[in-house]
Amino acid sequence: MTGGTPLRSLDEDELLGRILPGFPASKDLVVAPGDDAAVLHTSGRVIATTDTVVLGRDWLDAWSSGADIGHKVVAQNLADVAAMGGHPTGVLVTLVADPELSLEWVLDHVRGLAEACLAAGVAVLGGDLSSAPAGVVMVSVTALGRLDGEPVLRSGARAGDVLAVRGSLGLADAGLRLLQADTVDLLPVAVERQRRPEPPLAAGPEAAAAGATAMLDLSDGLLRDGGRIARASRVVIDLVPQALAPDVAALSGALGAEAALDCVLAGGEEHSLLATFPTGSLPEGWRAIGSVRDPAGGEAPGIVVAGRAVAHTGWDHFRDA
Amino acid sequence: MTGGTPLRSLDEDELLGRILPGFPASKDLVVAPGDDAAVLHTSGRVIATTDTVVLGRDWLDAWSSGADIGHKVVAQNLADVAAMGGHPTGVLVTLVADPELSLEWVLDHVRGLAEACLAAGVAVLGGDLSSAPAGVVMVSVTALGRLDGEPVLRSGARAGDVLAVRGSLGLADAGLRLLQADTVDLLPVAVERQRRPEPPLAAGPEAAAAGATAMLDLSDGLLRDGGRIARASRVVIDLVPQALAPDVAALSGALGAEAALDCVLAGGEEHSLLATFPTGSLPEGWRAIGSVRDPAGGEAPGIVVAGRAVAHTGWDHFRDA
Repeated sequence: MTGGTPLRSLDEDELLGRILPGFPASKDLVVAPGDDAAVLHTSGRVIATTDTVVLGRDWLDAWSSGADIGHKVVAQNLADVAAMGGHPTGVLVTLVADPELSLEWVLDHVRGLAEACLAAGVAVLGGDLSSAPAGVVMVSVTALGRLDGEPVLRSGARAGDVLAVRGSLGLADAGLRLLQADTVDLLPVAVERQRRPEPPLAAGPEAAAAGATAMLDLSDGLLRDGGRIARASRVVIDLVPQALAPDVAALSGALGAEAALDCVLAGGEEHSLLATFPTGSLPEGWRAIGSVRDPAGGEAPGIVVAGRAVAHTGWDHFRDA
Repeated sequence: MTGGTPLRSLDEDELLGRILPGFPASKDLVVAPGDDAAVLHTSGRVIATTDTVVLGRDWLDAWSSGADIGHKVVAQNLADVAAMGGHPTGVLVTLVADPELSLEWVLDHVRGLAEACLAAGVAVLGGDLSSAPAGVVMVSVTALGRLDGEPVLRSGARAGDVLAVRGSLGLADAGLRLLQADTVDLLPVAVERQRRPEPPLAAGPEAAAAGATAMLDLSDGLLRDGGRIARASRVVIDLVPQALAPDVAALSGALGAEAALDCVLAGGEEHSLLATFPTGSLPEGWRAIGSVRDPAGGEAPGIVVAGRAVAHTGWDHFRDA
């Protein structure tokens, strides 16, 4: 990401002149980037969320291009909007970088951001540029969205509901393991998913309309994120291992059975949607993988696999850094 | 900012448990921090802007406390909302930090953020935490606002308008110079303004209602920011030096006449509001400091002081870093 033209060789207006024309606008954008702030038409409720990626923590240049990181940081933010039952409408993007960072990396990154926004029908509303100490590159995105009905929270799961997933399980973590082992040819689709998650954005509002009682996107793994729904809703979620067998089988050839199960149960960065629905109201494309019940006497809310409680696992930013 | 309890000694949930209770909510906040995203009631148009501060670039720990930085990053974001003619409603806050950063600094910072938000009637909608390489601390804020009428852009100034300012000029830059010279006792009010800007937030929507034709907040200095209005509006702005004499006089005792004039004309981080109004429609509290005219034959749009064109000056992130 260094080499080529360093950012410090351009002034801020020149740099913005290279960046801004690549960004999509939208019919709802009343004031586009360039003034003090953007102005966006919206309905009565606006959704807002933010997520940041840091070089060396969230990505390595050996494994991901600038465009990959652009796709990924947009996808993980828009997934949070979808997981509330909303339609993403716009993003703000902040780049904080070592002035030695190459302009070529930045323009590739901007291309990835713009492609991901265009694909989702989302406008780039604005952003900020700032310099950072040597070696630091950080991209922070805030996503806004429109909510037509009621938000789908994590706390609404009720006894008798079905737990269901929309999208893949464990693929992104499998891709990370293949990159770490330098065996990417064993399952290229997993490596591609690690680089560019594909959250099923339209499925979020569809689930809300179908009566989903709780929903989130899988960023930290099925056990940890499922446990969040269980604890917020004060219920027990029984995962059905047989329902996960196809997901495990899809990864076993490349990783072996044990690692494949790990990926499916605890793999992060997948950004598929996990939700609970009243029995009989599962929309098309969702797969039932468990059920919701009230805790038995003395039992703690949480997630249970084949009758055994499991601890949530996953990444912790400051401890695991 | 190190020493005390390092962030790495807490897990993310413990850290959030220490941070979130200090943040103000609001009656418009439908879903508070803790779910995938926040949900906010709003009217038909939402304003969005983002601004980031980086340790060593935007502040030094020797000169500013964590609480000062919290106040400042909120103030500079809310000023951008006000400069569109809007009412700020909420912020999202991202902290990217070295895991050795002390919890005490973070809690002091959060106190400053919360105080500034409470004073402005603004809710904390959400945020993100991420770790960073050694020595890095960065705070990124996105502010949202409500726009009741039309946005006031930079491009609406017209010949015959009056240029006016609401708030002080040069005080924050004077404070920076006193900190650099270790002579803070010469003008403590300037040092306090450098640490904690006080944008006149309510004056933004008031100016919009009074018919302001262009507006921005002074983040990069009167000449540079005034030049932005002039170029966006394709007009010439004549600054009246006599109108700035009281501002210069207020700083001359501490800095000498030449540095005082520099601060007033080119000092950044003031976050006062600069706007143009049709003659006779200046709201209370605004001071006329210039006038707007069409360019003479061959003259470039820009800002003119006592009849002489002046180059815009100011900070450039990647070049001056």
